[in-house]
Amino acid sequence: MEYGMYFEDFTEGQVFEYGGETIIKAEIFAFAARYDPEPFHLSDETAEKTIFGGVIASGLQTLALWRRMDHEFFTPRRAAFLVAAGLEEVNWVQPGRPGDVLSVRCEVLEKIPSRSKPDRGIVRFGFQVRNQHDALLMVFRNKVMVGRRPAQAE
Amino acid sequence: MEYGMYFEDFTEGQVFEYGGETIIKAEIFAFAARYDPEPFHLSDETAEKTIFGGVIASGLQTLALWRRMDHEFFTPRRAAFLVAAGLEEVNWVQPGRPGDVLSVRCEVLEKIPSRSKPDRGIVRFGFQVRNQHDALLMVFRNKVMVGRRPAQAE
Repeated sequence: MEYGMYFEDFTEGQVFEYGGETIIKAEIFAFAARYDPEPFHLSDETAEKTIFGGVIASGLQTLALWRRMDHEFFTPRRAAFLVAAGLEEVNWVQPGRPGDVLSVRCEVLEKIPSRSKPDRGIVRFGFQVRNQHDALLMVFRNKVMVGRRPAQAE
Repeated sequence: MEYGMYFEDFTEGQVFEYGGETIIKAEIFAFAARYDPEPFHLSDETAEKTIFGGVIASGLQTLALWRRMDHEFFTPRRAAFLVAAGLEEVNWVQPGRPGDVLSVRCEVLEKIPSRSKPDRGIVRFGFQVRNQHDALLMVFRNKVMVGRRPAQAE
C-alpha cells in the first residue's frame, strides 16, 4: 500500500488542527445507556440533580469523538498509521455538553525510530480538545506506530 | 449522600474482580460507524482483507465496555467516586473480537490523600482486561477522586 504521510513527514513541534464534531444530546444518552450509565449522562431529569447541573458527555464519548475527527483528518491524507501503540495521561479538564462543537489541536511531541524494525517508528502526539468557546475539555497523548517511507527504486 | 465504600476502605494491593460483558459484532459495527470507521471494525467484508483477518473491536469500545463493567461493580457498592481524575498508560495488548467475554482485574496501586481537601483523596487503580481464554486485551491505570468517610457523630 502506498501512503501519503510517512514517519519522515512528521516533525517535532508540527501542529495539525481539525475538528467539527458536535456533541449531540441524544447520542450522549445512547452512549451512556450502553457504556456509562451515570445520572449526569442519562437524561435531563437525572442530570439536573447532580453537581454538573445538567447533561454532560461521558469522557469516553468525547475521546471517541476525537477518534472520529482524527480519522476524518488523517485517513484522506493516507497517513501510514500502522497501529495505536497506546494512550498516555488522558485528562478530562471539563466536561463536554450538548451542542458543544469540538476542535482538536494535535502536536508532534516526539519521534522514536524503531530499533528492531527499520520500516517504522513511534510518533508521540499531544492532543488538546476544545469546544466552540475555546474551553479546554480534554488533554492526552497518543503513541502511534508509523511506517517509514520506502526506499526509492534506483 | 451516604456511601458504602470510602477512601479508607481501599488498601494498596487490594484486588477486585468483575466482568461479564460480551463483545457483540453488531455493536462493534455500530460503534465504529460513528466513532472509529476503520475497515477492521466496520464489516466482515472490509475486515477480512486487513492484517487482523477479521472484525476486531475498537480499542475505545473495549475501554467503554470496561467502564460499563466498572459501573456495574462499584455503583451497587456505593463507592464514593467523586470524579475521574484521568487515565494513564492505556495499552491495547491484543484486540477484542466478536464473542469475547470480558473480565476485569482491578488492583489498588496507590492512595494519595488530598493536601488541600481533607474530605477526599486520589486512588490509583491498575486494570487488566482479559477475554474468556485469559488472553490479556488491555492494560491501563485510572486515577479516581474518592471521598473520605465522614467523622462519626459523638
